This record gives sequence, C-alpha cells and structure tokens, in this order.
Amino acid sequence: MKVALIGLGSVGRGVAEMIAKKNLGITITGIADSKSGIIDPAGINIANVLANKKSSGLCGSADIKALDVIERADYDALIEVSPTNALTGEPAAGYIRTALSRKKHVVTSNKGPVALQYQELECLAEQNGVAFRYEATVAGAIPVMHTLEQGLAGNEILAIYGVLNGTCNFILSRMADEGLTYEQALMEAREMGYAEADPTYDVQGIDAAIKLVILVNTIWGKKIQLSDIDRTGIDLLTADALRLAEEEGSTIRLIAEANPKKNLFRVSPRIIEKTHPLVVEGTLNALTLETDMAKEITLIGRGAGSIETASAIIGDLLMIKDRYVQRA
Amino acid sequence: MKVALIGLGSVGRGVAEMIAKKNLGITITGIADSKSGIIDPAGINIANVLANKKSSGLCGSADIKALDVIERADYDALIEVSPTNALTGEPAAGYIRTALSRKKHVVTSNKGPVALQYQELECLAEQNGVAFRYEATVAGAIPVMHTLEQGLAGNEILAIYGVLNGTCNFILSRMADEGLTYEQALMEAREMGYAEADPTYDVQGIDAAIKLVILVNTIWGKKIQLSDIDRTGIDLLTADALRLAEEEGSTIRLIAEANPKKNLFRVSPRIIEKTHPLVVEGTLNALTLETDMAKEITLIGRGAGSIETASAIIGDLLMIKDRYVQRA
Repeated sequence: MKVALIGLGSVGRGVAEMIAKKNLGITITGIADSKSGIIDPAGINIANVLANKKSSGLCGSADIKALDVIERADYDALIEVSPTNALTGEPAAGYIRTALSRKKHVVTSNKGPVALQYQELECLAEQNGVAFRYEATVAGAIPVMHTLEQGLAGNEILAIYGVLNGTCNFILSRMADEGLTYEQALMEAREMGYAEADPTYDVQGIDAAIKLVILVNTIWGKKIQLSDIDRTGIDLLTADALRLAEEEGSTIRLIAEANPKKNLFRVSPRIIEKTHPLVVEGTLNALTLETDMAKEITLIGRGAGSIETASAIIGDLLMIKDRYVQRA
Repeated sequence: MKVALIGLGSVGRGVAEMIAKKNLGITITGIADSKSGIIDPAGINIANVLANKKSSGLCGSADIKALDVIERADYDALIEVSPTNALTGEPAAGYIRTALSRKKHVVTSNKGPVALQYQELECLAEQNGVAFRYEATVAGAIPVMHTLEQGLAGNEILAIYGVLNGTCNFILSRMADEGLTYEQALMEAREMGYAEADPTYDVQGIDAAIKLVILVNTIWGKKIQLSDIDRTGIDLLTADALRLAEEEGSTIRLIAEANPKKNLFRVSPRIIEKTHPLVVEGTLNALTLETDMAKEITLIGRGAGSIETASAIIGDLLMIKDRYVQRA
C-alpha cells in the first residue's frame, strides 16, 4: 500500500519512523511539512527525509506544497497529521476533502475536521468508495473506534463516560494525591510539558468536549457540535472540594459523558468512587462504554505521545490495507 | 448468514435470544443440546425451541444428536458452546474438528479445545479456508482477541498481565475490603453463585492458567500447555498478608502474566498498587497488553454471564459474516 504523509511534527515523525522500522507493507510516496514537500513514486527514504528536516527544517523542496503532494502523488491513503486548529479544522479539512475527492482513503489525527464536518466528510468518503478513519483523534493509543466497530459489533451502545483529557487528569491526580491547589498542580503540569502556556483549551474542558462530539456523532449518527455540550472546566475546583471527596473514598475527575436517551452530553468535574475503573492516574485516558450485551467495557491507555498516536494511525492504515487495498 | 448452535446452556440460550432479538442478518438452521436436536433449512423459530426446552428439557427431537446437526445441517458457521470439560476439551473438540473439516467456520466459548489443540484446529481451519474464532474463551465480554488483531494491529505485544478469574477476584476483593478470611470470602462467593462446590479449578489458578495458555499461543504462536504455567493459587493466602499489602496502599490480586522474552508464564497472587488499572473489584476481569507503540492498554469488563458471553460470540460471528460470507 502506498501512502502520502502530510505533517512532520511529533505525530508525523512517529508515523514515518514506525513505517520505516516495521515491515508493514506500506510505502511512503509523498511527504509534506508546512514549508516543503517531496514526491517519489518509487518510495521515499524516510531516514534521509527526517535527517533533512532536522538539519534544514525542510523535509523536501520548498517548491512542493502540501496540496501538490495530495493532488499529484501516487498513493492509496493519505495520512493527514498537519498542525491544525482544532476549532476551525483548517488546513486539515481542506486537505482531507481534496484527497477524498481523488478517491483516496484518509487517516487523520486532527480533531477539528472530524468534530466540525463529520457528516460532510463521511458522506464524501462514501460517495468516493473510500474510508475516512480517525482513531487517533480520541484517547490517543486506545483503540476506541476499532472496539466500537469490531470488538463490540452487534452491541447497542447505551452511554459513554470518559476521561479524555490527560492534562486535566494529571492536575486532578496531583491535587488529590499531594493536596496541591489547582494553581500549584497546573504549574507542575506546565513544567512537565503536559499543559500549554495558555491552558484554557484543556482546563475548561474544550478538548474533552470536542472528543465527546466526535464520539457521539460516530456512535449515534448525531450532528451535535461543541456548543451542544454542557461544559464545566476544572479551573474553579478547590483543594477543599477534592479533600472532601477523598474523605469519602471518592475523588474528582473531569468526566465526558453522553447518553442520548437522556439527551445528556456533558463535560464536568464529577465525584467518582476511587475504585471505579475510570479513576486513572496521571495523564492516562479512560473510556467506559455501556452496552446492552457486554455491559460496561472500560479501556485505559495513553492519550497522547508521538509513537502512541502513531499506533492509532497505523491501526487505521492496516485496516484500510486489509479491507480495501489487498482485496481490490 | 446461516448458523448452527450446539449447546443450549446459559451461553447457548443467551446467543439464541440475542440472534432472535437483534436484526443481525443471522439465521439459525440447526440446534442441538445434549439430548436432542432440530434442523430446519428455512430457519428455526427460536422462541418455540427455548419454550420447548424449558417445558420438556429437550430442544428438538431425541433422534437428532449434536453430530447429526453438525454433519447434516446447512450452515456457514458453527456456534460451539456445548458443556465441555476444560481439561479434556471433549466433546467440543470433536464437534469443532467435524465442522472445520466440512469447511464451516467455527465460533466457540469452550476453553478446552483452544488450550489443548490450538495448533491443530487453527491448521485445520486454514486448510479448509475457514475461520476458527474463540473470543469468548478469555475474559468474557472483553474483546481481547479483536483488540489484539485489529485495534492494536501493527503493534508488537511485549507482555501481558491479567485478572482472568472472576471468582478469585471476588474472594480477594472481599478479603481486602471487609477483612474476611479466605474461608469466609469463599463461602460468600459460593452463596452468590460465583464459586462451585469444589472451587479447586478457580482458586488454584487452573482456570486463569488455561486462559493464559490460550492468550500466549494466540499472541506469540507458541505451543505451551497448562503444565508450562508456573501456578500458585489463592487458597493459602492469609487475611494478614492482605492487611499488610493494604497498609502500604497496595492489595493482592491473582495475576496471570506472560513475557516470552523472559520465558515467564505465571499465575500467582501478586502485590499490586491499588491505583493500578488491573485492580478491579468483584468479579470483573482486566487485562493489560504491553506493546511497543501503544505502550500499556488495559481492558476491563465482565468475565462471565450469559448475555456478556453472547456478546463475544456475536462479535466473532459478525466478523466472519463481514470477512467471509458477505464478500464470498
């Protein structure tokens, strides 16, 4: 299977390295970063490209842009992991649309296009007989979408509850375990590289809410948006609130939850028993799927990281390879 | 897709009910219990059969045996959930061999044949171009096999650690939470229906070890047997040992673990931090997969139950339907 890779940040590098290292039957025929690109129908030497990128800041020729690669390279699937604004979805959404229109499968880690334009992109993929996959957009390395589609096939999903933001979970874990204030725990998260200088997107629950939008629209075929999520962040939580919860054998976590029968779509700090499977430590993510046959299934794993996200992307690529390319 | 169902105990009834209730595109054309059988190429009325079974103890005619259904009925996949000795694998293994030789896919919940004859049955399935699936044999409703094959496709599995026996986990949870002795907790497990009159198979770790054999042979293509597992049960654990662990923020769980690079295949009571994802309560099961890309992925869910096990079987059936029957 031939793939083109758009984006050579942390995730793109991880994917390229894993494709180079593992014998997956995948050849990269086009790569672009934000300033340059390279096209080679015979297969690109990934080690050379990553070395170029490191020394010059460019992966290829400055004459070749991302859209050139998407429009001109010879590939079966596009790996779209460009730096993208999660609230506008661009430039990823445009890249994805172009590739789908060319009848190319698309795998992305960008939440924006999926949260904002799921119906349109899914429809475009269907019209063109190709797959649009986005396992990496929710809960990092945890194979949520694969579990929903395959592992729990035949089950009705009744409700979901998740810890979908590692930054918030780290802050709350530290407040609970060490009695830190919110400000102290946030500072520690910044020092560890888990929180941005402006932490609004994480601590006000926006990131978790975007992931919830993706899950709800995927599972139940809904068309909800970020504004449909009832959202409360963790930035006003006091150390006292956590201490009270802990005294009763519980703790507080930022829980994203959805139950369409109750019309409940919410991200908020919730008091939760410490023995509950969703109570995970540090930056871990966790998701409980409540189903009619399997009952509650909880998945726990890393929500971020270069190679961890590459795992989700490669899972999608191999599924496309198995379902479409090898059988074609 | 047409299926034949062998076994109408708790699991078989659950599967039959779910196939009748859900619109899965699956028709049952043959059913057998231990004393009778029914064959109908046009599709069997499941409600009638279950009512017959309840009133007379027979699902069909006493002239029709399980092997008659397996050999004569018209079906794509055999659902093999007959009452079977996990240590000998019979009669399930014979049923499975017969169906595979007829080029029929097989889905089973019986651990014995998979633990004892995995290589032979897998080889027979391959020779006949059909699938041999056994998701339900390990960790009940948790889609372990699907996650290994699909969700974590491309990952190398480095090691596994699991709570694979709900009875032991219930006993240890009660000893830890209520300060009960082993004998008290075992008595409670018996009263709740979680432990057999003779609990040896569970409390000495045999059940967990059999499931570990299945996982190891599946994941790493090994040929290990029950006797290759270094096994210690929970029946000699004292309340004092648990109290000591609890005093240090840890607890004790029966952990099945495998790491082929270390030649480690073990089931034993292990001290484990209470915040670890594997520390689940009551009869829950949990499995951590340690991988090269996704790192640690933990799956938690119900390890037993009629409908829960049916979930795993139906997941296998739908995979066969999608991969083989619909594409044929």
